[in-house]
Amino acid sequence: MQNGIGIEQYFEEKFPENPIIPATVFLDAHQTEHGSITHGIRTKIDYGMYKPEQLGTEQNKNILERLDHDLIAGDVESVILDNVQRSRWSKVIWNASFGPISVISGGYSASELLRDPIANQLVRTTMKELIAIGDAATGEKVSPISADDFIDKSFSITLNRPNEVFPSMLVDFENKRPMEHQVIVKNPIDVANKLGVKVPVLETLYSLLVLLEKKKFGIWQ
Amino acid sequence: MQNGIGIEQYFEEKFPENPIIPATVFLDAHQTEHGSITHGIRTKIDYGMYKPEQLGTEQNKNILERLDHDLIAGDVESVILDNVQRSRWSKVIWNASFGPISVISGGYSASELLRDPIANQLVRTTMKELIAIGDAATGEKVSPISADDFIDKSFSITLNRPNEVFPSMLVDFENKRPMEHQVIVKNPIDVANKLGVKVPVLETLYSLLVLLEKKKFGIWQ
Repeated sequence: MQNGIGIEQYFEEKFPENPIIPATVFLDAHQTEHGSITHGIRTKIDYGMYKPEQLGTEQNKNILERLDHDLIAGDVESVILDNVQRSRWSKVIWNASFGPISVISGGYSASELLRDPIANQLVRTTMKELIAIGDAATGEKVSPISADDFIDKSFSITLNRPNEVFPSMLVDFENKRPMEHQVIVKNPIDVANKLGVKVPVLETLYSLLVLLEKKKFGIWQ
Repeated sequence: MQNGIGIEQYFEEKFPENPIIPATVFLDAHQTEHGSITHGIRTKIDYGMYKPEQLGTEQNKNILERLDHDLIAGDVESVILDNVQRSRWSKVIWNASFGPISVISGGYSASELLRDPIANQLVRTTMKELIAIGDAATGEKVSPISADDFIDKSFSITLNRPNEVFPSMLVDFENKRPMEHQVIVKNPIDVANKLGVKVPVLETLYSLLVLLEKKKFGIWQ
């Protein structure tokens, strides 16, 4: 499992003949001890063919249907998508905004950020930039509703989560682990630059994030 | 002495009849013990009338000339400016870029920021926004040279300082003192918003700075 955008490229280059099926996973689970995972109330996987042109073949349709069959048999909610990149972008909008902001601002949880008016506005501005990249990259609206409605909904879901949510990037940072900022923040910025979408806030967050990481832990590579 | 922009307003409201003479002070001095200041090689004060319309009166000309005479008598380099706000903006361009970035990124000195390519670019982008506000606010170019040339010159002066420079905002933050972010960062942002100048990077830095301060020290007021 790997968050972010552009993570398929590596596999595409190594295995150009293979169909690639990216997914977005929604599940609540936690590790109780080494080797033991306790699952919560929901496991849902949205997935589809990486490249739209791969959708047409009978062989690829069969792969998706077999996967769907196996997931349902395993009691997993299975959703086959026509445009899986929209789903991946929808998820990165949360990760690329809450993640860097929580780390750089000193360790706020997601709901703490939303309850602070200044942070709430900063998350919203960052999400708007990400939605603009997603729209340009997928060639259609990442969300069928307006950017502000999408953000309102995302905020409401976050605030109504039963447990306090700490972005995974903050958890990594506090545990002195490398953060996934390449795939979550830098890859979307590179897409934005390629497509001519202006993302000054996201670029500022990324710069501060890598500077902070370097100052605290040196360089990983 | 007070860094920043818009610091005259308070005095203007309290003493509407008095001429106000803002200044930009350049001096290298340090406190050796309580009550003892050792001066370095240079003391220069640039100053002028707060409001351009105050320049015309004989009385105000006399005040400036008397001040000039006293400063020179005290071995201080004295420069009377036609547009003192240009000088104040020139100084805030350094303070409002290096200050917040050094604090938020975890405590880089000014020269460390310049030697890191990512930080160097971020400082440059921030300075460009500040120059754009200064140009709009003063009604003329803050610097007679291009923004990039002005920034190059400012970087070169900073890198050639004999001692490592730590922005005063970082010194305040590390000593758990309130930072001057209202007059150095927020006031320029307010001016930008009033004049319709877009400053997304500066707004992002300001938001992160106050969030970090709040997380670390609570709220001052």
